[in-house]
Formats: sequence, C-alpha cells, structure tokens
Amino acid sequence: MNNTIETLLNHKTIRKYKKDNIHDDVLSRILECGIRASTTGNMQVYSVIITKDQERRNELCKLHFGQQMVEEAPVLLTLCADFNRFNKWCKQRNAKPGYDNFLSFITAAIDALLVAQNICVAAESEGLGICYLGTTTYQADKLIKFFNLPEGVVPVTTVVAGYPDEDPEQVDRLPAEGVIHHEKYNDYSSKDIDKIYRYKEKLPLTRELIEENKVENLAQVFTEKRYIKKDNVHFSKVLLKVLKDQGFMNNEI
Amino acid sequence: MNNTIETLLNHKTIRKYKKDNIHDDVLSRILECGIRASTTGNMQVYSVIITKDQERRNELCKLHFGQQMVEEAPVLLTLCADFNRFNKWCKQRNAKPGYDNFLSFITAAIDALLVAQNICVAAESEGLGICYLGTTTYQADKLIKFFNLPEGVVPVTTVVAGYPDEDPEQVDRLPAEGVIHHEKYNDYSSKDIDKIYRYKEKLPLTRELIEENKVENLAQVFTEKRYIKKDNVHFSKVLLKVLKDQGFMNNEI
Repeated sequence: MNNTIETLLNHKTIRKYKKDNIHDDVLSRILECGIRASTTGNMQVYSVIITKDQERRNELCKLHFGQQMVEEAPVLLTLCADFNRFNKWCKQRNAKPGYDNFLSFITAAIDALLVAQNICVAAESEGLGICYLGTTTYQADKLIKFFNLPEGVVPVTTVVAGYPDEDPEQVDRLPAEGVIHHEKYNDYSSKDIDKIYRYKEKLPLTRELIEENKVENLAQVFTEKRYIKKDNVHFSKVLLKVLKDQGFMNNEI
Repeated sequence: MNNTIETLLNHKTIRKYKKDNIHDDVLSRILECGIRASTTGNMQVYSVIITKDQERRNELCKLHFGQQMVEEAPVLLTLCADFNRFNKWCKQRNAKPGYDNFLSFITAAIDALLVAQNICVAAESEGLGICYLGTTTYQADKLIKFFNLPEGVVPVTTVVAGYPDEDPEQVDRLPAEGVIHHEKYNDYSSKDIDKIYRYKEKLPLTRELIEENKVENLAQVFTEKRYIKKDNVHFSKVLLKVLKDQGFMNNEI
C-alpha cells in the first residue's frame, strides 16, 4: 500500500483543533495541490477564500450554526463556484460569456469540489485534520453577504483545517457492495437494504444515538432530527433563490 | 515534499490509454479510498457504477460525444448523486424521508464528487491515468436511460481510468493569487484580469488554439467554440428536467 492510499484510507473527520497556526509554506503547498485538481476545460471556475482572522471566524461560527471548531481551528477555507473572474476576462476580450445558467453553476460547483478534496487530502498528508461544513449550502445567502460575493459566485462548501486535538475512531462506512454497481444499476431489494445497513445499525454508537434522540431507529434520527424535510425544503428554496440572485438562472426561470 | 503532495502536484489528465486491464485488487483499493471520502452526515448518498464491458463502453462513447478514450480505457466510473438507497432504507424503517428537493440533490452531488476525486488521487498514486468527462451533466437524461437509474439517482460525473499511453506536458494553471482570496473576496479590476491571464494568453498552445478556431483570442475559443451559450442554456434545461424527473424538485416547481 503506498503512502497516498494510506492517507486516503486513514481519513477521519476532526472536530477538535489545537490553536497552532498552519505555517504559510504548508498552507501554500496544500492550496497548490488544490489548484492542480482537474477542472472543466481548464477554466478554473472556482475561488478559495481563506479566513484566519479570529473575529471573522467568530462571525462565521455563528453562520455555520455555532459549530465550535470554526472558532477554534486556525484556518477556514470557503470554496466557491466562481464564473465572475472568467466572465470579466471574456468581456475584457470582446468575447460574450454564456455562463449565466444552471449548467454553468453545476460546472463551477464541480470544479470547486474537486479542488476542495485535493486540499483535504494534501492537508491530511501534512498531518493536519479537516472537516467539511455542510452548512455552507444552507447559509449560502448569508455567506454571500459576509464575503460580499459578486454575481457569478456561490459558496458550495467550507473546509475547516488545523492540527488535530483529538484522535477519534474512524467512523463506519457501508460495505463497498452497497454503493458500487457493476455494469448496470442494481436497484435494492428490501433484503439488500437490510444487509447493507446491518453493520451500521448494530453499532454501539447507533444505539446511543437512538436513545439520545428518543426515536425508534437510526433512520428516524436522520429523518426526524438531523436532516428533516421542513429544513430541506426551506434551504432548497433559499439556495435556488441564491442561484437566481447570483446570475445562474437567467434563462431558466 | 511527501508522496501524496507529489502525486497531487504531478496530476495530468490522460486521454490515451493502453488496453491493459486494471487488476481487481487495484480497482477495489481505489474504490475503498473513494468510500473513505467525507460524506454529509455519513449518509453516503452516492453510487459508483463500473463499466468494463467493451460493448457498453462503445455505447457510452457515443453518449459522451464520441470521446475515443471511453472506448479505449478499460474502466469507466459513473458517479451518481444517489438518495434512492437511503430513501428505501428510511421507508423500510418507518421513517419518512424528506429528500425530494434541490438541497438534497446538491448534498448528494457533493458526496459523489468528493468520492470521485479520492478515486482519482488513489488511481494516480497507483500509476493509473484518469480523465473526467464533463459530458456527464450534459447527457444526464441519456445516461439515466442507459443505466436504468431509478428516482433519486442522477449521474454527476464520469471518471475514465486506465494505464497511460501518452505522457503529455502538464497544462498551465492561473497563478495562485488569481484564485485565492484572503479574508474577503477581492473582486478583480481590469488590471488584475490582464495580469492573471497573461501567462496563459502567451502560451504557444493558446496561439495554436486561436489559429485553429479562427477567432481573435483565447476567451473567444471558449465563448464561441467550446462552451457556447446556446448549448449551455439547452443543457441547463435538460438537467433541471432531469432533477424534476428524478424526484429532486418536488417542492420547488
């Protein structure tokens, strides 16, 4: 097994960080790895915003639903789908950009996410810990205000990075055959579902979660407590409005 | 510089592949690295479809706009945003899934893309080459038919993998300061734009592209030849219809 495979297989999300700063050299190297990620047509339609300032991290902590690590970790990277730079370049060169549409948002979001993951892998190879903040897409409207993002720019994810101050156990994953399909999509029978989720459902952590949340089973922890329909529908509307306001739905709505 | 950083910094997209198969052990290891990627709430709302069958690769080649490598490389991985498995699990456990909305599609797409990039990094560390197919989002409707994808499943990207039969030069990237922002988003002045794109615009490859395409400059290669508005608008509509048809816009439209 080579070192890269080892790094990838050993990934753990870190939620407690030391106060230690990330050295500029290390941060630059990690970001260079991000910039090397594949990007659609080499357009590089993304931006990375670095937040180190403590006061701004405190503000961002509130926007990210008060997750403590946002205040504690030394670096926050907000990854944005970004056609603004590319559009400006086109206009400055007498070329008419046609990127004010949903496909272009998805293209730019894909660019940003591949960059994000390269950054995370590079960070872990340097002994840093990382955590993704899913709250980024929920709070895209507020983050746009916070960062003063122009038309063509939408935040899609945030990476918290710093030196780990915990060493949690690696979390479970579904068995590979549960998420991998050969040649065609093999839709799941109820027996398949039972089999795929059996290990996860029997974990002590699962029992704790069920008791804590006072529900019947793990699936209900998700549907009734963590990712509930009302919130999803609300944030879907917010996010679609964001796409419209940031100029990515000019032909669709 | 550690080996992982080296792998990441040396990334080159490969478009010519040897016929050699990828050994099952290698492919499994790479996929396991994908499965270790961060995923929202550990829901793992993605699927990977492996295509090795030559006839099916020939068919997929047509769907991916005839890109030869799809026929030539031994393995094609279609990465899908997938709430189908999770929804089935919820329903089987007396839990009401609330994931028939746009936010849930984005959540699942993010999962799938982080998995994709882990797979690519792992593949390159094993001496394989990779190429992303942006045509996946353009042709999502046709790929859904091809793979017979149920509600809740949408393909978001495709990775071509195999042993390289070329050793191209590494392509250029914009300077880091062109895509990285400190603390706040520094919007680009026209001077900034000139500076950021100067190196790219002076490359011999750029001159070749301009002559080949009979346009005035590189920006016009993109806006008039490669990623033109008419296509983007068309594929935006197709993709939004796909999201609706696959049950990810049940509350928005």
